[in-house]
Amino acid sequence: MGKTEDWLDLLQTPEPDMFGARARSASDAAVLRRKGHLKEQDSFIQFVQGMHQTHTTLEVMQKMDRWIAEHRAEPRTSRLRRMVPTIGSFFVPLKMVEAFQEYDDFFALSRRQYVPPNFAELRHIFNIAQVHASAQSLKLITFDADGTLYADGAHIEHDNEMIRHIVSLMRSNVHVAIVTAAGYPGAPERFEQRVEGLLAAFRQLQLPKHITDRFHIMGGECNYLLRVNAEKRLEFVPDEEWKSLVMKAWTEAQCQRLLDSAERLLLEGAHRLRLPVQVIRKERAVGVVPTSTTIYEVLEELAITVQNQLQADLPFCAFNGGNDVFVDVGNKSLGLEALMGYLGFSPPEVLHVGDRFSDTGNDSATRDCCSILWVANPEETDFFIKLLLGDIRQKKTYGPTYIE
Amino acid sequence: MGKTEDWLDLLQTPEPDMFGARARSASDAAVLRRKGHLKEQDSFIQFVQGMHQTHTTLEVMQKMDRWIAEHRAEPRTSRLRRMVPTIGSFFVPLKMVEAFQEYDDFFALSRRQYVPPNFAELRHIFNIAQVHASAQSLKLITFDADGTLYADGAHIEHDNEMIRHIVSLMRSNVHVAIVTAAGYPGAPERFEQRVEGLLAAFRQLQLPKHITDRFHIMGGECNYLLRVNAEKRLEFVPDEEWKSLVMKAWTEAQCQRLLDSAERLLLEGAHRLRLPVQVIRKERAVGVVPTSTTIYEVLEELAITVQNQLQADLPFCAFNGGNDVFVDVGNKSLGLEALMGYLGFSPPEVLHVGDRFSDTGNDSATRDCCSILWVANPEETDFFIKLLLGDIRQKKTYGPTYIE
Amino acid sequence: MGKTEDWLDLLQTPEPDMFGARARSASDAAVLRRKGHLKEQDSFIQFVQGMHQTHTTLEVMQKMDRWIAEHRAEPRTSRLRRMVPTIGSFFVPLKMVEAFQEYDDFFALSRRQYVPPNFAELRHIFNIAQVHASAQSLKLITFDADGTLYADGAHIEHDNEMIRHIVSLMRSNVHVAIVTAAGYPGAPERFEQRVEGLLAAFRQLQLPKHITDRFHIMGGECNYLLRVNAEKRLEFVPDEEWKSLVMKAWTEAQCQRLLDSAERLLLEGAHRLRLPVQVIRKERAVGVVPTSTTIYEVLEELAITVQNQLQADLPFCAFNGGNDVFVDVGNKSLGLEALMGYLGFSPPEVLHVGDRFSDTGNDSATRDCCSILWVANPEETDFFIKLLLGDIRQKKTYGPTYIE
Amino acid sequence: MGKTEDWLDLLQTPEPDMFGARARSASDAAVLRRKGHLKEQDSFIQFVQGMHQTHTTLEVMQKMDRWIAEHRAEPRTSRLRRMVPTIGSFFVPLKMVEAFQEYDDFFALSRRQYVPPNFAELRHIFNIAQVHASAQSLKLITFDADGTLYADGAHIEHDNEMIRHIVSLMRSNVHVAIVTAAGYPGAPERFEQRVEGLLAAFRQLQLPKHITDRFHIMGGECNYLLRVNAEKRLEFVPDEEWKSLVMKAWTEAQCQRLLDSAERLLLEGAHRLRLPVQVIRKERAVGVVPTSTTIYEVLEELAITVQNQLQADLPFCAFNGGNDVFVDVGNKSLGLEALMGYLGFSPPEVLHVGDRFSDTGNDSATRDCCSILWVANPEETDFFIKLLLGDIRQKKTYGPTYIE
Repeated sequence: MGKTEDWLDLLQTPEPDMFGARARSASDAAVLRRKGHLKEQDSFIQFVQGMHQTHTTLEVMQKMDRWIAEHRAEPRTSRLRRMVPTIGSFFVPLKMVEAFQEYDDFFALSRRQYVPPNFAELRHIFNIAQVHASAQSLKLITFDADGTLYADGAHIEHDNEMIRHIVSLMRSNVHVAIVTAAGYPGAPERFEQRVEGLLAAFRQLQLPKHITDRFHIMGGECNYLLRVNAEKRLEFVPDEEWKSLVMKAWTEAQCQRLLDSAERLLLEGAHRLRLPVQVIRKERAVGVVPTSTTIYEVLEELAITVQNQLQADLPFCAFNGGNDVFVDVGNKSLGLEALMGYLGFSPPEVLHVGDRFSDTGNDSATRDCCSILWVANPEETDFFIKLLLGDIRQKKTYGPTYIE
Repeated sequence: MGKTEDWLDLLQTPEPDMFGARARSASDAAVLRRKGHLKEQDSFIQFVQGMHQTHTTLEVMQKMDRWIAEHRAEPRTSRLRRMVPTIGSFFVPLKMVEAFQEYDDFFALSRRQYVPPNFAELRHIFNIAQVHASAQSLKLITFDADGTLYADGAHIEHDNEMIRHIVSLMRSNVHVAIVTAAGYPGAPERFEQRVEGLLAAFRQLQLPKHITDRFHIMGGECNYLLRVNAEKRLEFVPDEEWKSLVMKAWTEAQCQRLLDSAERLLLEGAHRLRLPVQVIRKERAVGVVPTSTTIYEVLEELAITVQNQLQADLPFCAFNGGNDVFVDVGNKSLGLEALMGYLGFSPPEVLHVGDRFSDTGNDSATRDCCSILWVANPEETDFFIKLLLGDIRQKKTYGPTYIE
Repeated sequence: MGKTEDWLDLLQTPEPDMFGARARSASDAAVLRRKGHLKEQDSFIQFVQGMHQTHTTLEVMQKMDRWIAEHRAEPRTSRLRRMVPTIGSFFVPLKMVEAFQEYDDFFALSRRQYVPPNFAELRHIFNIAQVHASAQSLKLITFDADGTLYADGAHIEHDNEMIRHIVSLMRSNVHVAIVTAAGYPGAPERFEQRVEGLLAAFRQLQLPKHITDRFHIMGGECNYLLRVNAEKRLEFVPDEEWKSLVMKAWTEAQCQRLLDSAERLLLEGAHRLRLPVQVIRKERAVGVVPTSTTIYEVLEELAITVQNQLQADLPFCAFNGGNDVFVDVGNKSLGLEALMGYLGFSPPEVLHVGDRFSDTGNDSATRDCCSILWVANPEETDFFIKLLLGDIRQKKTYGPTYIE
Repeated sequence: MGKTEDWLDLLQTPEPDMFGARARSASDAAVLRRKGHLKEQDSFIQFVQGMHQTHTTLEVMQKMDRWIAEHRAEPRTSRLRRMVPTIGSFFVPLKMVEAFQEYDDFFALSRRQYVPPNFAELRHIFNIAQVHASAQSLKLITFDADGTLYADGAHIEHDNEMIRHIVSLMRSNVHVAIVTAAGYPGAPERFEQRVEGLLAAFRQLQLPKHITDRFHIMGGECNYLLRVNAEKRLEFVPDEEWKSLVMKAWTEAQCQRLLDSAERLLLEGAHRLRLPVQVIRKERAVGVVPTSTTIYEVLEELAITVQNQLQADLPFCAFNGGNDVFVDVGNKSLGLEALMGYLGFSPPEVLHVGDRFSDTGNDSATRDCCSILWVANPEETDFFIKLLLGDIRQKKTYGPTYIE
């Protein structure tokens, strides 16, 4: 066709240099890269959004109250199951009408007649209901790291507001864990770097052992568990103490075979998509990072390709990290289940906070074993944790007598 | 309910001030304001997107080539009409397959098997096809101002790349007009401020009159027409020279009645939505600007409310400006038609570039009378105008002999 | 391909004649002709049906009560308009909840949890609501003939139950008209044949003139109006007495031109569809009747083809008659409007009963000018007229004093 | 409400008895019972039908050829799986384009531009493709009885055309079985009554043992297997010869517990739906038969209710029989698998012909273990078996040398 040349030509054509024209390159076309809405994909929320065609939000939430209760009682044949076949479990009862009214008092959603709630607005209402419900029974709260606790690639700094929340939660007898894809085998100091502000606070506040025992980090989705030692530093919990039988049975050879296949699929996929990438291979993960601009959709394609084509003996998690695509051995559901087993908690007592709950997000698996909060950024995490702490505080004051 | 107080309480609750807690206010909830996807609403593009469920993009574009040709021949009963009842006219034939292939050479869209094109990608393909088609017959190109020629609220600075493009277009015998909501009755200098860099270039380049005669500004959607005078300054074209009979018949009293009704509806709507606003009343327009944070959805609701409820003798345009909601007397379609009549051009010779083509955007009306390019920001405008200039240059070189 | 021969061969292949095999012909394939559900097409009823995904029938009907009232007040911008853009007018208020409960008492629809109402069930509920609403103000009831008053191709026999109903209606001060596609210019006796039992009853009962004056037949959709004369026979009402100005302006040449074009399109269409047909040409109508077995879908295709392609100076009605496809000059809406003008009645006082209200049915046009009852066969007509007569009787007894 | 009385009153109101009015009863409302389209429900066929919005039938079938081949290769992640999550297996490759063209030669489907194929037309095209594909490898063909081999409640008479087909199939080395819900434990003569014409033909034709060995009846879905003995009469095959280990493990107590629960649910359901019924309890089945008029939808509701609520240790089949609702121990899939194991055939060698393949039909389960033909009545069965016999005959003549 010669069309590519045309584009290059076009963009390089010198023009009368009156206004300081500079040589152009093909990269100018990058201005056209605009991502769509794939991060906001969820069959249940989209179903709820669709109901607004024929319902007010109040009517929707009244039905949700009834239908969620029915689904908790009859998950296999419930009305929600028939309407949203991929729907999961609600581990605690949700009061959607109350959550909506609380939200509405601030945002006047019910005053809109023509414009239904957007995805984020509905997500927030679900979050509010979830916070109030989980606050009653919460024993363990887990957080995704990047995009949830701090900005992508950042870490918990000393002045981070989140530190105060985490300590408050731990003091309120709630265990806290960070459940992250990041994994640094044999290097607790690398984990420490990501939460240095938090550990510094533990030290500065001289938190007693029974409090710091309530903090863990699960790394590599489900591969590494760390705790706080007497020096307020991180140390690995020995595998035999916390890993499930199934996980203990994974061999090094199986892991490497899985990662080899994954690496090959990632590279083939990137090549097919004409995406130049750099491979990052770790003990229990392999990923690719684009070396030129691209859009979310291309990474999504790559993640789905691996999800569909990877044949493996072990469970794995192929996910779109937003700026990369990774395949990890195991997944957060296995990690959470192992942690819950280790600490002795059941699904209604656990809440996972994350920012990636679409089909290609590595937080999705957690829906199988506990309640979730879906946030869009650390500011939202901050907001909902404050709401949660308020509930817990109130429960202590007015609730059934409670002795720590 | 007392719930509002709860929220305020929660957000103000003092906490151990170890990490410098500061007093919080209700405005913290603002972190939850996230807009959805209303700017990307178009029944035809969404239909094309939906076809990707069962078609590759190439297949979609092959059908588009056939169906657009059929629709041009039989607009009332065409297949596209049956599938997208609100579809408009295609004033020039579009070669969608070629545009797709051109786009695909850069963006490898066809390599994706699981992730269909997003809204912007399809918009870009339509734009490429439109540029190539319009280049053949273009006599007049019109631009929306804010969000299209320059960032919202900015103006054309001296070093603006766009200046070079506009001059190139005018030198290539293409008339250029800015068609904007902004209106400054009796104040050409206010219009000049918005394009000062451009006028400076006209002077610096000592553009001859027959070139500067190719530049106009249509202000207030369709209420004020300006041209360049001998001093390279803007001056109003007298109404009797360019306004249509219908527009000339509008009385001041009718306009004020319309604006009074609009102002009342805007204020009632803002009150209903609990949105504090400031009113801006002009000769031919009235608008409200929120005085606190809000989201796009709320402005959308307000714009639709006025569209639905305003009863008026005159045509009007109620639109969501992104940061405000305005009601203008008349609309861009009337403005463009008057301009086309004044300059003597027909729909296939005209192209309007804008960033607001959804139902509440003030560029939408232009679809009735000419071809359009839908851009998301000035960088995209820049890109497509370069593409257009390349086509025009090539036509001059290789096309039928052409003497200016 | 030779495939056609294969089929013929196959079907003709002699087999061991043990069980009396007889020669077969291609017509055996006719066993595969099965019509679909095109007769039950209506965007509004289908919308109401779709609501059952997320609503109980009671909830649907509660919304209908509200939304129909809102649509009557604001037809241009109502919620129903936004959801069903092709929705028409409701000339009288409908009480859908009451109608549903009345229906439900018999049919226990509300007891079903998994199987929503089918099309006919919803149609019946609308009919019940319509009967009760129209009974309050009814001055004129009109009936389609074939498929509504009697079986296709039949006529009103002496023992027909419908006779009793028609007389009861007329005695209750309700005008009755048959509005039919059938047209016999200059031949009142042909019309008489279709209703001979009814006229016989008029005579036998010695109905006084002021009663028989309440009976009319509108033939050829809108082309011929007949009344009952002193001998209880039918006679044409002179055109100048009842036709609208527009209809009076139609020339014979225009009609013939329209019918010529229609005939050509019908024949071309039938040829394209490989449907052998016989043409029937009348003064104000032309149609084709298949001369071999076919299915409803093929006739539908032919009717839509003519609707889309016929260019004409006069209004026309191209419709699927079930066993034929006809194009008539004018339509039932014009016929009804003329009749309403002649008798002096307004839309809320008129009710049309028919069996063809889908897009290719010739009863559809009546929706523009009066309320409707959609029946599936004469038995349903009988049922709903009894319901109507009950209401009228009750109104007489308990209602406002009424003197005939 | 008193509304029921109103209806009864209305229908009983005496009217002037001029035209022989007779007393009416509530049963008059039965005229409103009209069934919908639940028999024609199939997510795949409906998906294919939906594609016609944007595809011609030829385009649809071209894609089907590709997508079915892809789905056979990658059933878990295929494009069809993503678009129709409930899609099953294709045990043989289907040539949909060829089947369509064969159908189209007779029915001119491709000539229709506005009216897409109805459900039955698509079902026929699938059937034609299935017949041609299965003919190549067919070893066993099984038939549902009522509605497929003969009209509901009828049996195979002496002059039945189907007899000739069955014998032809058996002579062509194809095993034939009737797989039916009907079960008569310990009473082979009851089974004989249903196929008396067929057995008479076996005798009259003096079919040799190696031919009559190719005939079986599977009764009670999967509970009774019968064969033809030397006297050309039916006899039970001892359970130990043909039942799977799993089926042999079912205890009488388990069966009775299941049937007790089912009976209770059927009666509760019928009571809820206000449907008067008679219970029919058999050794391995229980059902209810309405004792007054009802519609298909009500039986559907009852069948789904039991499907959703019955908790059982054994597999079961709760189905809408059209005029009754039955719950059988086991299902046709188990019956077919056992028969296939007994005779030594694999899925690509087997074809089941039935008329109930929607979710509440008892033929649906067979999709799991073999190819299927979906017919609407015995006439269609006759048609497709003739087509199949033609293929088999041709294969014998022209195909690879074949010695019986």
